[in-house]
Amino acid sequence: MSAKDDIPAIFLEKISPRGLEAIEKTKQFVENYCLPADKLYHEQISTDPALRWKSTPQITGKLKKKAKELGLWNMFLSKHYKEGPQYTNLEYGLMAQYLGRSAVAPEATNTAAPDTGNMEILAKYGNAYHKEKYLNPLLNGDIRSAFLMTEKGTSSSNALNISCSAKLNSRGNYVINGVKWFASGAGDPRCSVWLTMCKTGDDTTKLYRNHTVLVLDAKKALASGKAKLIRPLGVFGYDDAPHGHCEIVFNDYEVPADEMKNVVLAGVGRGFELIQSRLGPGRIHHCMRLIGVGEFSLLRVANRANHREIGGKPLAKRESFINQFAQNKIDIQKCRLLVLNAAHKIDIAGAKAAQRDIAMAKIETPRTILKILDWGIQMFGAEGVSQDTELAMLYAQSRTLRIADGPDEAHLNQLGRNEAKKFHEADGFFATYEKNREILAKL
Amino acid sequence: MSAKDDIPAIFLEKISPRGLEAIEKTKQFVENYCLPADKLYHEQISTDPALRWKSTPQITGKLKKKAKELGLWNMFLSKHYKEGPQYTNLEYGLMAQYLGRSAVAPEATNTAAPDTGNMEILAKYGNAYHKEKYLNPLLNGDIRSAFLMTEKGTSSSNALNISCSAKLNSRGNYVINGVKWFASGAGDPRCSVWLTMCKTGDDTTKLYRNHTVLVLDAKKALASGKAKLIRPLGVFGYDDAPHGHCEIVFNDYEVPADEMKNVVLAGVGRGFELIQSRLGPGRIHHCMRLIGVGEFSLLRVANRANHREIGGKPLAKRESFINQFAQNKIDIQKCRLLVLNAAHKIDIAGAKAAQRDIAMAKIETPRTILKILDWGIQMFGAEGVSQDTELAMLYAQSRTLRIADGPDEAHLNQLGRNEAKKFHEADGFFATYEKNREILAKL
Amino acid sequence: MSAKDDIPAIFLEKISPRGLEAIEKTKQFVENYCLPADKLYHEQISTDPALRWKSTPQITGKLKKKAKELGLWNMFLSKHYKEGPQYTNLEYGLMAQYLGRSAVAPEATNTAAPDTGNMEILAKYGNAYHKEKYLNPLLNGDIRSAFLMTEKGTSSSNALNISCSAKLNSRGNYVINGVKWFASGAGDPRCSVWLTMCKTGDDTTKLYRNHTVLVLDAKKALASGKAKLIRPLGVFGYDDAPHGHCEIVFNDYEVPADEMKNVVLAGVGRGFELIQSRLGPGRIHHCMRLIGVGEFSLLRVANRANHREIGGKPLAKRESFINQFAQNKIDIQKCRLLVLNAAHKIDIAGAKAAQRDIAMAKIETPRTILKILDWGIQMFGAEGVSQDTELAMLYAQSRTLRIADGPDEAHLNQLGRNEAKKFHEADGFFATYEKNREILAKL
Amino acid sequence: MSAKDDIPAIFLEKISPRGLEAIEKTKQFVENYCLPADKLYHEQISTDPALRWKSTPQITGKLKKKAKELGLWNMFLSKHYKEGPQYTNLEYGLMAQYLGRSAVAPEATNTAAPDTGNMEILAKYGNAYHKEKYLNPLLNGDIRSAFLMTEKGTSSSNALNISCSAKLNSRGNYVINGVKWFASGAGDPRCSVWLTMCKTGDDTTKLYRNHTVLVLDAKKALASGKAKLIRPLGVFGYDDAPHGHCEIVFNDYEVPADEMKNVVLAGVGRGFELIQSRLGPGRIHHCMRLIGVGEFSLLRVANRANHREIGGKPLAKRESFINQFAQNKIDIQKCRLLVLNAAHKIDIAGAKAAQRDIAMAKIETPRTILKILDWGIQMFGAEGVSQDTELAMLYAQSRTLRIADGPDEAHLNQLGRNEAKKFHEADGFFATYEKNREILAKL
Repeated sequence: MSAKDDIPAIFLEKISPRGLEAIEKTKQFVENYCLPADKLYHEQISTDPALRWKSTPQITGKLKKKAKELGLWNMFLSKHYKEGPQYTNLEYGLMAQYLGRSAVAPEATNTAAPDTGNMEILAKYGNAYHKEKYLNPLLNGDIRSAFLMTEKGTSSSNALNISCSAKLNSRGNYVINGVKWFASGAGDPRCSVWLTMCKTGDDTTKLYRNHTVLVLDAKKALASGKAKLIRPLGVFGYDDAPHGHCEIVFNDYEVPADEMKNVVLAGVGRGFELIQSRLGPGRIHHCMRLIGVGEFSLLRVANRANHREIGGKPLAKRESFINQFAQNKIDIQKCRLLVLNAAHKIDIAGAKAAQRDIAMAKIETPRTILKILDWGIQMFGAEGVSQDTELAMLYAQSRTLRIADGPDEAHLNQLGRNEAKKFHEADGFFATYEKNREILAKL
Repeated sequence: MSAKDDIPAIFLEKISPRGLEAIEKTKQFVENYCLPADKLYHEQISTDPALRWKSTPQITGKLKKKAKELGLWNMFLSKHYKEGPQYTNLEYGLMAQYLGRSAVAPEATNTAAPDTGNMEILAKYGNAYHKEKYLNPLLNGDIRSAFLMTEKGTSSSNALNISCSAKLNSRGNYVINGVKWFASGAGDPRCSVWLTMCKTGDDTTKLYRNHTVLVLDAKKALASGKAKLIRPLGVFGYDDAPHGHCEIVFNDYEVPADEMKNVVLAGVGRGFELIQSRLGPGRIHHCMRLIGVGEFSLLRVANRANHREIGGKPLAKRESFINQFAQNKIDIQKCRLLVLNAAHKIDIAGAKAAQRDIAMAKIETPRTILKILDWGIQMFGAEGVSQDTELAMLYAQSRTLRIADGPDEAHLNQLGRNEAKKFHEADGFFATYEKNREILAKL
Repeated sequence: MSAKDDIPAIFLEKISPRGLEAIEKTKQFVENYCLPADKLYHEQISTDPALRWKSTPQITGKLKKKAKELGLWNMFLSKHYKEGPQYTNLEYGLMAQYLGRSAVAPEATNTAAPDTGNMEILAKYGNAYHKEKYLNPLLNGDIRSAFLMTEKGTSSSNALNISCSAKLNSRGNYVINGVKWFASGAGDPRCSVWLTMCKTGDDTTKLYRNHTVLVLDAKKALASGKAKLIRPLGVFGYDDAPHGHCEIVFNDYEVPADEMKNVVLAGVGRGFELIQSRLGPGRIHHCMRLIGVGEFSLLRVANRANHREIGGKPLAKRESFINQFAQNKIDIQKCRLLVLNAAHKIDIAGAKAAQRDIAMAKIETPRTILKILDWGIQMFGAEGVSQDTELAMLYAQSRTLRIADGPDEAHLNQLGRNEAKKFHEADGFFATYEKNREILAKL
Repeated sequence: MSAKDDIPAIFLEKISPRGLEAIEKTKQFVENYCLPADKLYHEQISTDPALRWKSTPQITGKLKKKAKELGLWNMFLSKHYKEGPQYTNLEYGLMAQYLGRSAVAPEATNTAAPDTGNMEILAKYGNAYHKEKYLNPLLNGDIRSAFLMTEKGTSSSNALNISCSAKLNSRGNYVINGVKWFASGAGDPRCSVWLTMCKTGDDTTKLYRNHTVLVLDAKKALASGKAKLIRPLGVFGYDDAPHGHCEIVFNDYEVPADEMKNVVLAGVGRGFELIQSRLGPGRIHHCMRLIGVGEFSLLRVANRANHREIGGKPLAKRESFINQFAQNKIDIQKCRLLVLNAAHKIDIAGAKAAQRDIAMAKIETPRTILKILDWGIQMFGAEGVSQDTELAMLYAQSRTLRIADGPDEAHLNQLGRNEAKKFHEADGFFATYEKNREILAKL
């Protein structure tokens, strides 16, 4: 099967020949290199708690080399970034659906979160120092990064609630205090920079100008002893080592005044602007990865259905199974169209204009894929919950996407409130309607 | 609001300026003339059982005249029919979503089922006689027609089961016996022709060549006394007069040998071919009408939400309501994309190539719209089940679309069996995968 | 099958021998007389709009006679009413599940709404006049009654919104103005009394004392010309003639001062108290009727599944069908237990103590039964939506029970708010828990 | 709150004073000792892979001592076992709902699977040797046990597929070959006995007499080197150490002829009989544990809702949250009634008569509780998937109960096939009905 077969015709028409080639190459790379390497990847992570976070699997390096050779590198960087290959969101989205199937593929192609969003933000808002010190090594896959946003005990989906404070002391230094958690990627021994959302102001008249993103040197912060990486958080029992989702405590960690211009990203009080610029396309990429995960789960199930006999005939011949398989295919197709439609809208009109489409995709896709994965697990029986298929791990990872970047409920409510703003149109509609009714009655 | 706002960008790009103009005009015509006329339409149907099926609402004639003036006529006829305006399926689909909102709009624009499918079949397979006698008056909106397919006591979704027989007797006449029901439109006093699926052969080696579509003159058949229109069937409590869904019994009704060539459509034994040609685009048009119905229901609900207070605040401000409204918008958008995608596929590759897409749309759309209508009813309370909103009637009509042209279950199972034919690909996929795993381990 | 087989063991233990005998007799009566009579019942209602509301089917009278002979009369009257047979709610509930399957059974046994609630209220609150004039004829099945509660344009699930006013004029007469609708049973030519909820006061400090139930003589009110029965409302196209759900307009209808004591029920300002006393057990009886409807639908489906072939084998042998049948049986069993549990709770502790159980049953049962009916319709195909099975009509009737006596949403929200009042217990629970954790750590 | 408040009235009537006292004591013990100890329990399990399976948490021993003092020991043993406290299934079920909330409570009270089922089987079928060597130490909580049933690559829900073979060789020894997996509890260092389902015959005329349960000494088997504990399987990311779900390979493991009578349980070929006797009540106990888990999740959520602010007001005041909370309460109540009803049926009529009720409870409960847990996770956001609440771990454990003892699909299909056997009754029903219709029409 070619990648073309996975692209609805209406979208295929929008793909450039160069984009299509890259999509096909991505598919081949994932299927021939990354998926087969996943088991090895997990085996190369030490089970010894003392060593588990100290090194990263060797296979990744080999795959990165191969990906670079193939030109499959930094594909996430859209036309807005001269540093990248300039695919459209639609094109990259179609690559992402393959990358999402493998544990190692995103890092192998330097398209792994949260580095992707961090690179975008640094390319857009960073100064020369940020670019040389962090952006270039990130673009080259030499270091990794984290984004310190979510806080313990805070409803962080509303960024106004972010309370980790950076206050200027008498010496003009920033003093940082607070607890961040679920800082993904902070566990990696190569993680060198923390983009950290802090509260730097307290102006109740300008609520959206009180926060600032600080660019903190991770190694230096940890060395100071005033910033501590407390522990990795688990996700359904997985610690995702060496990447990790970490709790980090700042206890009077000071940033000297003379480093200030390299620490403040874009400007004091511009935190909201920065985090918003991170969200739109990134959400669509997450969704496309999930679409890929869903298709992969169905592929696993199809494979099993050929060989598993239930009541004397293969699962593949049983009516209930077949019907459910078809339903899953419909459900995934509906999400795919939703996501590709949003990706295309971003390409032609920008993330802001596509906000409604992005929200719909963000709400629907994780739920749908989780249902598909759950069914996949059920079709595999006990094997499905174990390490012998990818399904349980994929379920756990996908489950977080109903929470990350704001829970479903917040997005649904936001979408609903936006819809309600248009309700007055309905009044006008039916008023005209009643008036015309009278005219017609007299005809 | 313009019709453009209802069209996802990726599809808007495919609409010709002429098509877009017609879509906009359709929207205006439906909103300014048809929707306001619906109440009148129903009032002009007599409640007296003796008169109810004898005449049709006068308002329809006035609207037909207006539609013709506007050039909104026979828009369903695609490029394959020189008789029509040659819009694409995508373009007509977008018109159909407005037409579907009004009880009178389809007939007013001569795009009402089952005439649409009947006109297509007569245009494609009819001889000169058929065209002059039936097709032209149908195209002009002067007569109406029915398709006699479904049979009492038969699982008619598999047309092989059709048993109404037309047997040649010793005089070379066809003698027809059997019971057809749910013949929609046969109740209309203007209904002049019955396209009737009959079993004309009994060859067990060519199961798909045993059926023939006969073009029966409805008035003549009824006058003979050998074909009887027994009764209208109800849909929930609606009889859909004067259109009607009728039970028709043939009791030795004879077609003389010398009329044979005008009665047999396309040729003896070609019944399957004919009915299959009817189905693809027609299903998509049904789906688009449903999309329109769903949006109309949400519009009604929005209007109510502005004015209905629950617990001291308008429904439009209540969290649960808002969230549910948003969810309905997502659900309808997913279906819209599914249907438009299938319409476009038909346009570029034909109905056969689009079979899978059509099936998905056919399965999902009625269920989704029924959920939206049911919620609409619930939001209106007792008023919602009554004649004071359109919702209950729309629910009843939409409910039949989970059954007509084959029940959901049949389509889902067919889709699943087609998917299962590709399961062997999964075996190949994972075999390669395991092989590559070994290679990689040695790197 | 005996009725015993439909009763979960734990509840069977609570049924008296006399109760069990009546349950069995009810089952026999419904199956042998009422269900077979339903078709006749519908045929005996004129389709002529001029006659449709003028008489009632003759078969009902014959069945009433038979029911009286069998001692199956007024079984709904619980131990609180000396006038009745004094079955428990559990016992009557088990009878109601059979009565609910037939269109004619409730009236045949004088257990039809809204007469049941009206009889209870008149027995409990009526004076000698009310009892002689209305209660006794109602108990005897000689007249019928309506309860005028719901108002057009009002969210009547909160009775505080009831605005139909009865104001004292200078002569001490009540002058009634307002529009009531969905007054079920008001269409029946035998309907002789309207219990009417009116706003008689305007005291903002005693919101629950501003309403009064007036006992209006229906014939007299209509004769006055100041109260008009405008029209019957439909339910999905059914008008439920001759019973009807009517819109009634009061336009300065006056009740003379000297009739006041016979018109005011219980006392001015006691409207709330009265309507609340109507609700508890009545809801459970509705639920048990629905349970019966659901089982009847499954019986119809089982019957069809034996004889309908799909793809060469009877539906009864197809995996998807069988699984879905089983799921429906589980769903109905869960509701049955919920309802019987609530009925028993009312029996031992009263309706107030059982409020939470009643709410749960009221919310869940209609939804569940509607799903079962909808599946039944689907399994019957086109026949399912028509008059040839009972399913569509039962669906329409059952659909109203998600709205009547307050929509699902209102009950769910009320239940949730009651639950939330207990949330503080959770705080206590986990506080203890944390404290004990410290103690244990030191063990 | 007292335990009484969690018991529906109809079931409370069936509880003996002694049973109620034990239920209350169980609730207190779980809440005051076990739940607070859970964190400690997990901390006392080494994260070092070399030590993780070598010892068990000390806290367990302390709690076991306490439980014995309180008389909370072996409560699962029903009236059929003279060795136990002889509570009814209903009574023990109500205790189990508390025990299920805590990771350590089942073991602390010696009511942990798979020991419970193993003790029952040994008590019922074991000889003196089995009782002295294994049953008594198990009853006393001194050793632990495993049941080796499920096999890799086999659809083990149908035990006919079990292929691990025990063949007599020329010396009259059994030689065992095969791969068992998901042998829960086999990882525990105290696990001393493996009840192992083996294929001992090959008689195609007596398919249900080909299997035998062998009582294998675990330590001896492992020491032989011919039986190997390969690895623990994971459940999502949890390994459930030191309990574990293990893969065990037999490679020509021999049981000498002279030990045969102590190895064969009950008799050669009686495997089916034995495993069936294990299932009924055990399934209900699992379900009741799940009910407890669901209520615990709601308690956690209630606690959070008091303190978590979303959009300026606590979650506990938000409409959508409140409604969803109420819906969850209804869903859990429906399951509770289903499970208690089945438990009571077992008590009065035995597991066989209760088969249908048990199946319904087994199908519905895990699904319902998983939905509740999933919602709980969502309400906790990122914290919900982590180790900082119990929810994700409970989700993973509960997820296995849709698979263990046969997947949902198998039970649903079995239930459906049993229902279909009664479909002929529907035919009789409607035949009578039609006949009576004719009689009535003539009245």
